[in-house]
Amino acid sequence: MVAVEARLREIASVEPHALATVEAGGKRLRPLLVLVAGLGSNAHVALSRAAAAVELIHSATLVPDSGLAAAPRRRARQPVFAPAGPPAATATGDLLFSSAFAELARNGVLAQLRALSDASAALARGELMQRADAWRADVTLERYLQRCELKTARLFAAACELGALVGGGPPLGPFGRAVGLAFQLLDDVLDITGPAERTGKRRGTDLLDGTVTLPLILARQSSAELSALDLRTITAPADADRICDAIEATGAGERARRRALDLVATAKRELPPQCPPLQRQALELMADGLVDRFA
Amino acid sequence: MVAVEARLREIASVEPHALATVEAGGKRLRPLLVLVAGLGSNAHVALSRAAAAVELIHSATLVPDSGLAAAPRRRARQPVFAPAGPPAATATGDLLFSSAFAELARNGVLAQLRALSDASAALARGELMQRADAWRADVTLERYLQRCELKTARLFAAACELGALVGGGPPLGPFGRAVGLAFQLLDDVLDITGPAERTGKRRGTDLLDGTVTLPLILARQSSAELSALDLRTITAPADADRICDAIEATGAGERARRRALDLVATAKRELPPQCPPLQRQALELMADGLVDRFA
Repeated sequence: MVAVEARLREIASVEPHALATVEAGGKRLRPLLVLVAGLGSNAHVALSRAAAAVELIHSATLVPDSGLAAAPRRRARQPVFAPAGPPAATATGDLLFSSAFAELARNGVLAQLRALSDASAALARGELMQRADAWRADVTLERYLQRCELKTARLFAAACELGALVGGGPPLGPFGRAVGLAFQLLDDVLDITGPAERTGKRRGTDLLDGTVTLPLILARQSSAELSALDLRTITAPADADRICDAIEATGAGERARRRALDLVATAKRELPPQCPPLQRQALELMADGLVDRFA
Repeated sequence: MVAVEARLREIASVEPHALATVEAGGKRLRPLLVLVAGLGSNAHVALSRAAAAVELIHSATLVPDSGLAAAPRRRARQPVFAPAGPPAATATGDLLFSSAFAELARNGVLAQLRALSDASAALARGELMQRADAWRADVTLERYLQRCELKTARLFAAACELGALVGGGPPLGPFGRAVGLAFQLLDDVLDITGPAERTGKRRGTDLLDGTVTLPLILARQSSAELSALDLRTITAPADADRICDAIEATGAGERARRRALDLVATAKRELPPQCPPLQRQALELMADGLVDRFA
């Protein structure tokens, strides 16, 4: 991971916004999955490239959230002028996206580029789906799961596929997919249950954003109040806190969490029998690590 | 081009914003260059894919300008709510970018993917450079030319390289690069000289955006008024019109235009001797077509 981190910074260093986005960091779960999925291989450089490429795709989608905190302030000083060219966030995203493909292309294996481009197209469709469904409290469970599949599971699957492709091991895509779904579900549960000191972000951020997730979908099945809720009425953090409490009171947070734990168990079952014991253990540890965030 | 157009719509049809962006269209110069650079080849499907991929990269950078005209209005109805997830423009750009690589990966040739990822990374760096230089009247000629190289010439070069790679003909990258530079320079001249009825956009749009281009850079060398100009004072279209007139009065528009014409001549000289006569003629016609826009 030290080599991957250094490579990420090197790639992003051509441009300050890109570097800020990459340095804003995160848990680096996806590149770690690439490395563990390629465990036992001596192709360290190729694995690092694949790991960096996956994280660059992930970073590209985070640009508007974290990477450009300084940009609005700078723009605020020139309120009467239209910004020059496309927004910096869009261009930074474009740069990180392109850099991901340029980096992976250096491995010289088409199947790897196919896996990455399919996953990144799915991710973008998932983002757009989330936006299209914003403020719609009646999002169905099926549609929510499809969004998680596109937005999160496919890149996790690609991370594991890439590691296996580079390392020459058995296919690990299905494991990655289930781990990715579990990760997204738990992340959505944590947004409702908090506590903020553990998660690092305010409870109900998704609700304030108009994003409907599993706990609310399940809670609406048993609560008349939540079933009639208009998300547009949630404007203050205190409103969001109150709705989070109402969702938790129905037991929906716990039900959503159990669903995520089932997916972790599914992920472990998806590990192919020919997976070497050491690698199996490492992958199982990673899957369990997701749950520990919640425990 | 009919097949390319159909393929572009098919790829973008998975998502309404992406489709709107692709349908907003344009001159389709880049895919046309791919096809002409591959002239004589029977690999029609592979050429169409390469042409579509290049146009998808170009489209991705246009999203904020043209593709999402409806979005701000929709958001305006919910002024107190934060948007859900990343801005639709960013996600649409991500989708078009990913789709470009997914489409080109179907050709199964690594060199093609390398050419596209290098060009798209350059393009994103060029966009960011334009933004970094916004409102800076003292941008040097060298820096301006470097921005044009990154923002425009590299994708034109890649279009020609891809056509030649698919078609098996002689390398055409240097021709594409010079054509791309000429195109950007002429586009920048047209922004100053208009007339708006011919160009389809208001004179001085770049000035109002804070983007300094070749005519102003040249005009500042001979005009004390323009040399002291603070771009932030140009707030109304009438201001922009007046500055455009002042730039034209120095002869800088004509000097910039001559520089672009020299690049068209350079492009033709860059055509390799082994280029078949029919293809040479078609490529020269395309290069001249750029100039005709201006005549």
